[in-house]
Amino acid sequence: MESSFGEAARELIFVTTDRNKGALRELALKKGYKTFAVPDDVGGRFSVLTEVGLVGLALAGVDLEAFAAGFEAMRRRTDPADFWKNPALVHAACRVAAHKVGKQVEVVAVNSAGLYHLARWMEQLFPESEGHEGRGLWVSPALFSEKLHANGQMIQEGRRNLIETFLYLENPDNSLPIPEDPDNVDGLNYLSQRGATVEELNRLIIEGPAYAHFTAGTPSLRINIPRRHPYCLGQFYYLMERSVAVSGYMMGLNPFVQPGVEAYKKAVFALAGRPGFEEEGEAVKRAFEERERIIV
Amino acid sequence: MESSFGEAARELIFVTTDRNKGALRELALKKGYKTFAVPDDVGGRFSVLTEVGLVGLALAGVDLEAFAAGFEAMRRRTDPADFWKNPALVHAACRVAAHKVGKQVEVVAVNSAGLYHLARWMEQLFPESEGHEGRGLWVSPALFSEKLHANGQMIQEGRRNLIETFLYLENPDNSLPIPEDPDNVDGLNYLSQRGATVEELNRLIIEGPAYAHFTAGTPSLRINIPRRHPYCLGQFYYLMERSVAVSGYMMGLNPFVQPGVEAYKKAVFALAGRPGFEEEGEAVKRAFEERERIIV
Repeated sequence: MESSFGEAARELIFVTTDRNKGALRELALKKGYKTFAVPDDVGGRFSVLTEVGLVGLALAGVDLEAFAAGFEAMRRRTDPADFWKNPALVHAACRVAAHKVGKQVEVVAVNSAGLYHLARWMEQLFPESEGHEGRGLWVSPALFSEKLHANGQMIQEGRRNLIETFLYLENPDNSLPIPEDPDNVDGLNYLSQRGATVEELNRLIIEGPAYAHFTAGTPSLRINIPRRHPYCLGQFYYLMERSVAVSGYMMGLNPFVQPGVEAYKKAVFALAGRPGFEEEGEAVKRAFEERERIIV
Repeated sequence: MESSFGEAARELIFVTTDRNKGALRELALKKGYKTFAVPDDVGGRFSVLTEVGLVGLALAGVDLEAFAAGFEAMRRRTDPADFWKNPALVHAACRVAAHKVGKQVEVVAVNSAGLYHLARWMEQLFPESEGHEGRGLWVSPALFSEKLHANGQMIQEGRRNLIETFLYLENPDNSLPIPEDPDNVDGLNYLSQRGATVEELNRLIIEGPAYAHFTAGTPSLRINIPRRHPYCLGQFYYLMERSVAVSGYMMGLNPFVQPGVEAYKKAVFALAGRPGFEEEGEAVKRAFEERERIIV
């Protein structure tokens, strides 16, 4: 395993790895690479403020102090015991109430590609934390308007088992005016004439659906994100992490563990013939033989 | 609206547009562009075998005759009145049964980025067709293993409201051997020693989870796709379209309409101030004022 950069590779490569064990850790020690540690006691979904998240953010040029300051600000903001002054408690209570009355799916909709991966993170954070002992809301991220039409029929008139959460960017950091067309071919001059911008329309693609879906029986939450800034992102991450801690405990489970994710790994190891998984392999084989199945 | 290519643009540009109306249609007529038609009586989700889908497929270099032949082959294959010999009937019946016993979400999992957008199409096809009159399964596409860990906990131990559908590529069109590492640093030499390939492992990432999730109470369907070929894709599209026609009618609704998607559009038009939507605008404004809300 020689690097093509030889000794100089040591200056160029660093790795984030388990603190004590694993193949990557061994390799890094052998080669003398600088290492950062994945903490043992923090699940991946909660790890953004550890070296796991911070190293990547630093590489991407994110202002870590602003990010951490946002975390800290939201920590203080979510400390009050006064329920109505604590956004983490209110957010958690809304979702737990939805869960209790039988809502099954939380659609997390964004109107900005830049926010989409926050929804993707929520897709892991909440189900992995709450999906225990037969509980939990399924989280389904959606970029509006891309997916709005595809899923709009079901949200509007399908099973009333949905809630919707909107991530709403209050102040976009660009502004694109809508030009006038002398022939008004597209019939949209009513927009340019009152000086509407693309960003305004982009907000309406949250507000319009929020109104239409709510009116049809899909309750919704909206999380306002003041602007695209590390400080606001830090606030957002902390709010969600604290909220799921509260909702998990309110659902009567421990939101910080994920015992269920081992089962499929064991089955894959067994099928792959990994030494030590012979017994599991037999069980899987038996199940495949005995399982009732229909083949068409 | 002058094209920078002038008259020559007419040879380069063609458009797919409504047969009779719309701004793009008018523009195309005026400029003399070649047009293809969106049929009035076929919903977008069913339009792959119309000019809507075929023009794009042709541009992508897909063999349209093979694609259409796959459609036709599956049409014949799904004609038998004998339930057990008709994959569309069996597929529809499985999903309707799941719906009837209270399953809420269908996770459609693929192990190949090349198949992912089939799952994305199903995400529209089924909910938009079945999501009427308080019915329908929510469809959630997932690329395994990318999303497997994130959602695995919930599928394994969360609410028992899920079914899982796997799109399974039987014969991948590439084969990547797993090399041996003299130091066995990663402990994976048991794979190279028995000649395992990346494709085999990639199939286990369907089979392992299928076993683990099924054992934990998540029933599953698997659709075998023989190979990545237009003929097989044609078969797949036809099978799904016929299946949702059956499941929609079995749920007691018309799967070929989508009346609910107009509501959000009207609300957006009203908020945007489009002439003719003044009444709707008042209703939206009142609703925003009167709606019960909590702000934290």
